[in-house]
Amino acid sequence: MVKLARRPGMGRLEAFSDAVLAIVLTLLVLELLPDGAQSPQELFQNWPTYLAFFAAFLTVGVVWLNHNEAVSRIRRADPIVQVLNLGLLLGASLMPWPTALISAALKEGDRTDQIAAICVFAIVTILISVPWLVLDNYLIRHRELLGSATDVPWMRAHARMSIATLLAAGISVALAFASPLASLVLYIIVVAAFLAVRLREQVTKPSQLHPE
Amino acid sequence: MVKLARRPGMGRLEAFSDAVLAIVLTLLVLELLPDGAQSPQELFQNWPTYLAFFAAFLTVGVVWLNHNEAVSRIRRADPIVQVLNLGLLLGASLMPWPTALISAALKEGDRTDQIAAICVFAIVTILISVPWLVLDNYLIRHRELLGSATDVPWMRAHARMSIATLLAAGISVALAFASPLASLVLYIIVVAAFLAVRLREQVTKPSQLHPE
Amino acid sequence: MVKLARRPGMGRLEAFSDAVLAIVLTLLVLELLPDGAQSPQELFQNWPTYLAFFAAFLTVGVVWLNHNEAVSRIRRADPIVQVLNLGLLLGASLMPWPTALISAALKEGDRTDQIAAICVFAIVTILISVPWLVLDNYLIRHRELLGSATDVPWMRAHARMSIATLLAAGISVALAFASPLASLVLYIIVVAAFLAVRLREQVTKPSQLHPE
Amino acid sequence: MVKLARRPGMGRLEAFSDAVLAIVLTLLVLELLPDGAQSPQELFQNWPTYLAFFAAFLTVGVVWLNHNEAVSRIRRADPIVQVLNLGLLLGASLMPWPTALISAALKEGDRTDQIAAICVFAIVTILISVPWLVLDNYLIRHRELLGSATDVPWMRAHARMSIATLLAAGISVALAFASPLASLVLYIIVVAAFLAVRLREQVTKPSQLHPE
Repeated sequence: MVKLARRPGMGRLEAFSDAVLAIVLTLLVLELLPDGAQSPQELFQNWPTYLAFFAAFLTVGVVWLNHNEAVSRIRRADPIVQVLNLGLLLGASLMPWPTALISAALKEGDRTDQIAAICVFAIVTILISVPWLVLDNYLIRHRELLGSATDVPWMRAHARMSIATLLAAGISVALAFASPLASLVLYIIVVAAFLAVRLREQVTKPSQLHPE
Repeated sequence: MVKLARRPGMGRLEAFSDAVLAIVLTLLVLELLPDGAQSPQELFQNWPTYLAFFAAFLTVGVVWLNHNEAVSRIRRADPIVQVLNLGLLLGASLMPWPTALISAALKEGDRTDQIAAICVFAIVTILISVPWLVLDNYLIRHRELLGSATDVPWMRAHARMSIATLLAAGISVALAFASPLASLVLYIIVVAAFLAVRLREQVTKPSQLHPE
Repeated sequence: MVKLARRPGMGRLEAFSDAVLAIVLTLLVLELLPDGAQSPQELFQNWPTYLAFFAAFLTVGVVWLNHNEAVSRIRRADPIVQVLNLGLLLGASLMPWPTALISAALKEGDRTDQIAAICVFAIVTILISVPWLVLDNYLIRHRELLGSATDVPWMRAHARMSIATLLAAGISVALAFASPLASLVLYIIVVAAFLAVRLREQVTKPSQLHPE
Repeated sequence: MVKLARRPGMGRLEAFSDAVLAIVLTLLVLELLPDGAQSPQELFQNWPTYLAFFAAFLTVGVVWLNHNEAVSRIRRADPIVQVLNLGLLLGASLMPWPTALISAALKEGDRTDQIAAICVFAIVTILISVPWLVLDNYLIRHRELLGSATDVPWMRAHARMSIATLLAAGISVALAFASPLASLVLYIIVVAAFLAVRLREQVTKPSQLHPE
């Protein structure tokens, strides 16, 4: 069993996290399911739901991409790592909730409902980011859990990114008081831009990131 | 870790995609769940739901079969591959939505609702096919990501198939204006026929497809 | 890649089937979710739902155990194997539907609704058994897809079991005309007894079944 | 295939259990999904749902952590192990049910409804613990199924923990007659404390638990 266990505990942590994130992504569609036949007009008026779905899918997708990258750098899952990972999965598993709130608030709620929905979205983002930030710092302090020396700078960069996400959550709440819809659209633009920049970086230096 | 990483990043990409597609397949049953006890007549009158379920199951099943085949030819998942894969999973995860719309529109909607539902089905098909087409072409241009020389012709064939799917989506919308039900039935026949042809091809030359 | 592909295509077939069956098992709980607060009396009156849940869980559990055993004997997944496996997963993914129908019919439906619900349960059982029977026979005729010589008798035994399941489905429908509840209870007893017998057999000769 | 099968049958048992537990965790969010737009007040009044969600997430999370640890010590999955594992997954898959009951009873039910909901929560805990206790004892009596000599004491410790869980379930029911809310809060505190103690133990002696 020594050889199988080169990355002890990581196999099931990856499988479990993949399953949770995959289910979250797929449950987002529940918000789209109609109560009955829908006319083209009703389908068009449903645009806030599509926007909320897209924002949530983008968020969970980016969480998966980062999780993928982060977890591949961990050499051994001790119980602290497992519990912090469960913590960030708790946040991720909540994502269909603000999605449904935003969708309902934009369609039929008043301004207060919309601001509240954006706040819940921000809180869920924080619930994902905080355990992840703690995990990043735990791994930086326990380098024996990481695969190689280059992983510490990566974890530091990721920790800074988690802090940036927390700031963005705060800004999105502030913006929501001016315009909830603008806050959501800006959120999507920021995440998409961030994803594009990260894609560019990784593609230009793939050998460093995936040493073979 | 060098030996474990022979196909870096592919393990989780496969596991995650399998999970998303499995959940989509299984969530389709939600549309069948009754509000209360149902008489035999109500069960029979529910046929549009069964038809929509079957069309959606067939589509996601074929996506899984092709995804299986395509992904086994990729040697390394760079971030572009991962994001394009997320793109096609976004389309796949939406599949319960047009299924519910078609089912409701055929049971209680008017002709306009039915045409709209078929249009949403076509749009979801397009949302699956377009990122896949981009992925095929990206892999053709980056042969170092593929496993062997025979994979380029396969990706070319798959890209042509994605274009055929886009055409089929357009035709199904055009047909829906004549008869939404006929459009759905024709769609099922085309996908089933296409599956049968592909099965025959693969069975007659398995050694080329699965070199051991 | 030669070494990784010792059982080409089987890894994802197993992962995908596990995911589908796991989701079906877990979606069965949806039928139990209440609309609001429930008194102890309401909880007790809900017994048909618990019975239907247990019958469905037992069925999917036994499907998983057999699938596990059957698939471990397949050496290579050709497209026919994959499509027949998708066929039996289609049946399995439908299981929450008759579960909901039986539960609703026993609680609030008349006798005809109950008989109809038992019929749908039998039909779903048939939709699982028929593709599996075809798969068993396909593997018996294509021994090169199986792992060892002892797998052919196993597949023959499993094919006989699938035929027995089809007979049991027919009998359960016939019995439903006398008493739908008795039909369901008898079904549970038969599956549980069958499981117990099979457990005893396998435990007494584990070395033959899991050669190391 | 000899080398691949070093832990025969364990791969799919792990994958299947991970999938079931991941889905249960993720389905808990369904209880949070709103019927329509919600005002900040409605969001605050929804606190019983958040509490029930957290208690259920914590329970399933701890089940996953223990399952992880227990299963890594099993060398071979015989049919008894598989069926007992299915038994504990049955209990786990029911978890969204008492979660919904508690949430509804605290929001709109009377005291009797609340006590009944806590009882269902305790019953589900028992349905998880009893098959696990049987599994622990089965493995202690069949040491050839375990990986190493140190696994027997671990299983004994886990069996004691399962008995403690059964006692805790009984106490939570007794407490519910005094105050259902206090019973739930105490449950969360006990599970969290128990998790913290276990984390501390494991971190201080990781080499014993994950020999490399």
